[in-house]
Amino acid sequence: MSRVLTLLTDFGWADPWLAEVRGALHSAWARWPEATPRPAVVDLGHDIPPGDVAAGAWFLERAARCYPAGTVHLAVVDPGVGSARPAVACRAGGRFFVGPGNGLLGCCSGAADLQVVRIEACALAGHPATGRVSATFHGRDLFAPAAALLAMGAPLEQLGPAAPATDLGTAASAAASGPRIVWIDRFGNAITDLARESAAGRRLAAGATLKVAGQPVPGPREHYAAAEPGRPFWYWGSGETLEIAVPGGCAAALLNLERGLALALPEP
Amino acid sequence: MSRVLTLLTDFGWADPWLAEVRGALHSAWARWPEATPRPAVVDLGHDIPPGDVAAGAWFLERAARCYPAGTVHLAVVDPGVGSARPAVACRAGGRFFVGPGNGLLGCCSGAADLQVVRIEACALAGHPATGRVSATFHGRDLFAPAAALLAMGAPLEQLGPAAPATDLGTAASAAASGPRIVWIDRFGNAITDLARESAAGRRLAAGATLKVAGQPVPGPREHYAAAEPGRPFWYWGSGETLEIAVPGGCAAALLNLERGLALALPEP
Amino acid sequence: MSRVLTLLTDFGWADPWLAEVRGALHSAWARWPEATPRPAVVDLGHDIPPGDVAAGAWFLERAARCYPAGTVHLAVVDPGVGSARPAVACRAGGRFFVGPGNGLLGCCSGAADLQVVRIEACALAGHPATGRVSATFHGRDLFAPAAALLAMGAPLEQLGPAAPATDLGTAASAAASGPRIVWIDRFGNAITDLARESAAGRRLAAGATLKVAGQPVPGPREHYAAAEPGRPFWYWGSGETLEIAVPGGCAAALLNLERGLALALPEP
Repeated sequence: MSRVLTLLTDFGWADPWLAEVRGALHSAWARWPEATPRPAVVDLGHDIPPGDVAAGAWFLERAARCYPAGTVHLAVVDPGVGSARPAVACRAGGRFFVGPGNGLLGCCSGAADLQVVRIEACALAGHPATGRVSATFHGRDLFAPAAALLAMGAPLEQLGPAAPATDLGTAASAAASGPRIVWIDRFGNAITDLARESAAGRRLAAGATLKVAGQPVPGPREHYAAAEPGRPFWYWGSGETLEIAVPGGCAAALLNLERGLALALPEP
Repeated sequence: MSRVLTLLTDFGWADPWLAEVRGALHSAWARWPEATPRPAVVDLGHDIPPGDVAAGAWFLERAARCYPAGTVHLAVVDPGVGSARPAVACRAGGRFFVGPGNGLLGCCSGAADLQVVRIEACALAGHPATGRVSATFHGRDLFAPAAALLAMGAPLEQLGPAAPATDLGTAASAAASGPRIVWIDRFGNAITDLARESAAGRRLAAGATLKVAGQPVPGPREHYAAAEPGRPFWYWGSGETLEIAVPGGCAAALLNLERGLALALPEP
Repeated sequence: MSRVLTLLTDFGWADPWLAEVRGALHSAWARWPEATPRPAVVDLGHDIPPGDVAAGAWFLERAARCYPAGTVHLAVVDPGVGSARPAVACRAGGRFFVGPGNGLLGCCSGAADLQVVRIEACALAGHPATGRVSATFHGRDLFAPAAALLAMGAPLEQLGPAAPATDLGTAASAAASGPRIVWIDRFGNAITDLARESAAGRRLAAGATLKVAGQPVPGPREHYAAAEPGRPFWYWGSGETLEIAVPGGCAAALLNLERGLALALPEP
């Protein structure tokens, strides 16, 4: 039985939507005897840009691998809520995922133990007070009850019929024609998808100066304090991909970086 | 005994105030033996506009009904802290509420099981370290200890003497001369207080085009994907009231909507 | 054994960093039998200005004293991550603190029971999935595992060798030549470090009008509702230091206040 349930959404923090999802979880768990321990509810984040499924998918993949086996990841970035896109739950890599089949759960696709179901028979579906399923809030009325059940040990099959892996869907993202910036963080650091262990990554490892926005970006450095204050540099980030930062400054502002920007690599 | 305690404030997330309230809860619970399970502390939200009691009251009413019986809702939007406004706790609809008697807990007023007390005898009142009650931080020094006690099963009477329902107070809000926009969410959707089950709601249900800011807003539609991208429409939202949205866009920006705006309905 | 673990960072809420730290905690705890209760993870705050160690130190000192004995405080504002600055854990005032030795944990320095170790032998160090310690993310790979262990009752010595108190480091802050504004909160209130119990504080207690930005600021008043709406006043705040506010308004905007501003006191 899992003891951790995580939440990732594009709901932000200011509206009642997140509070209602949490209420749906606790209302579901109220059906168990009081002595039964409740799962820990953990926020992954709620600032995914509204409707940006690709950003949500990247965030989820990155964060989920830090969680223990058995964790239930509830993810909702769902501009097509209520439409024909399926509502899915799956087991992947020893963890569980619940959300819309629009590519948000893309990190599950390659899992050896992948098992997908359509959420069509969730016994606890519906608003906690009225029991009605809103066509515009599956996060509260469908995904939360499903995730709540999984976190209490219910088998995947209890939620609905088996479904093909294609039901997980695909997120539209920039053509994968080369490495790109996939995230700009609060510090103005740019995280790319160029993996340290890729061919290009191994080629750069000996040392290389990138050209970004006309400025030289040398690297790799070990950490921020090993680079020159106020000057951009690159390093292997905490996700084992190439990142660009400015010690004591903001790389995104200095180099005019944004998500999606292609990374120009030096000729081999 | 309750196992969920929720927090709703206008404290924001950046200051130490919320951290101190949480500390007061855990310091109260530290008096119980370690083996006693602690309530789950759940954030409803902390971005209520500073001092906006009416906004807090709407948010609380909307979110609270998603929580199970026995939940303790601690709510603090309290511009009159320290003044003559009473500090109250009540039981309503099988749940508990703690906060200032300024209308914030207005959703409790009509409850059949309503029972109100003034918090004047809370045994754990005071700063967790010094024991002093600050005149400007009842959230930490008065409401949190009271809510912590209720969440551990203490009876309402233990907090102070019974009080009339009028001690819950009334929040100033726009004259209820007709349906209005009561919330703009992160997606730019406008939530109104026009209930689906009201007379006006039933009249619109067959289909009607509203006129908002000079633009036609047709509806109802089932969900966002059932409407035209980039064009405003209305639908019955997840709270069973009329909402206005723009698929893939921001209704609030497109139509210049804001909280308090009156909704013009077509003639019957 | 502690049952509360708090988090204070400059990570913000929008990036995956906080989610990864929380994952590291739960991955560490997954090694214990399922029946063992997990500590409550409590956010102190994550909006410390990036790299602002002095702001983090003030916030931590203020919030930590509201928590019960045995609490583990994990704090990460760490611009020098990966460099020679030590990674430390300590016991102080019956609580535990884990973070960089850059002054962030400065509130521990004077504790009678102070005991400091360098985190050099943490058995659970490393990314939860790969086991590698990133040179730029000690929050996830070093501090979180150390804090997770302490919260499960591990002795401090298990994390590494004893270290001198000077390993806690010192945060650069404005020269302490007199009382200053140390925080501006969401309401626009200015919190100073002038203590009520100091010589200057006792002198002001009888009543005094401060001069701030050319405007008279009378006080002390008991609370906001006891002062004139729209006019600045001063009062003894909930941390027992002098604060400046404007009832129904924003003192910071009206008086052009900011963190670091020196407070001019009337002549004795």
